[in-house]
Amino acid sequence: MSDHAPIEVDLAKSYRLLNHGPTVLVSSAHGGRQNVMAAAWSMPLDFAPPKMLVIIDKSTLTRELIEASGEFVLNVPSRALAQATLAAGSSSGRDGDKFSTTGLKHFPATKVGAPLVEGCLAWLECKVIPEPHNQQTFDMFIGEVVAAHADPRVFQDGHWQFDDEPLNRSIHYIAGGTFFATGEAFEVQKK
Amino acid sequence: MSDHAPIEVDLAKSYRLLNHGPTVLVSSAHGGRQNVMAAAWSMPLDFAPPKMLVIIDKSTLTRELIEASGEFVLNVPSRALAQATLAAGSSSGRDGDKFSTTGLKHFPATKVGAPLVEGCLAWLECKVIPEPHNQQTFDMFIGEVVAAHADPRVFQDGHWQFDDEPLNRSIHYIAGGTFFATGEAFEVQKK
Repeated sequence: MSDHAPIEVDLAKSYRLLNHGPTVLVSSAHGGRQNVMAAAWSMPLDFAPPKMLVIIDKSTLTRELIEASGEFVLNVPSRALAQATLAAGSSSGRDGDKFSTTGLKHFPATKVGAPLVEGCLAWLECKVIPEPHNQQTFDMFIGEVVAAHADPRVFQDGHWQFDDEPLNRSIHYIAGGTFFATGEAFEVQKK
Repeated sequence: MSDHAPIEVDLAKSYRLLNHGPTVLVSSAHGGRQNVMAAAWSMPLDFAPPKMLVIIDKSTLTRELIEASGEFVLNVPSRALAQATLAAGSSSGRDGDKFSTTGLKHFPATKVGAPLVEGCLAWLECKVIPEPHNQQTFDMFIGEVVAAHADPRVFQDGHWQFDDEPLNRSIHYIAGGTFFATGEAFEVQKK
């Protein structure tokens, strides 16, 4: 774990960790195996109880581990982890432990067996809500958030508060190796 | 329409218009009525044929129009439209035509009856894939993209190419009146 011990995020505010559409790392574990993959297609689905949605292709080891364990973690990587995120999205856990091949490290979650990825900005521990039709037809997994955490340098009191360090921003994948960083915050007043 | 006539986007690349998780405006029309609302919870679901997913609350007029017409458009607003986006997300079309109350203008789509919102950066015309369980249980609508367009100032040859004008960036809603702009683009090389 880094020097910046994660703080707990109120479940009612946990949707805010994904509301801006960052790319996530999906971590999973079952039966002594674990894995991490990248997913651009992930978002909140409900506020209370908080639910998240993520698309997980049938070919992946992550899919196998999530289906077996009924759990996953959505980790919000920083720009400092963009290279590792691309690597986690471009290789298969079937070809070797992706924590080894990407250099990503992990630490234990609080409510699920899947690990939390070190150096991320936020973490959402999820338990799968079984949806056989969605899983089979759309590769769609719905999880209820059972615990949420954030790096207090960037998320405090229910709000993202990015500092001036560009590498501490969340990231948004497009295609190839192209990402956008999360940009400037701005406020709009209701008229 | 602005001076910057939309260009057609190859359907195979249309997922890139939403892959970075921007907040969208959802436009709809049926039986002489039309509406526009904001949605932070929207994302690509599949590449080919391209499918998009959006969460539409049961209480909304948009829901009624989409269920009646089987069509909707996901419009990607620029920061210049952030105030109107917040307004479209904070009021109901049942209380009056939101194109009037928000000042948003529109022009015709090519393949669906729902209008395109003027001044947006990109537009995805969608036909609903009926999913009664997802619609009822999760307020989730899945649409196949039947036409896609973009402002050539910001999206060309299948790639976002934002200029230096901050108001031409896409936006990412968090809560209250807080948004992030889409930030700096960066490239990561596969190792």
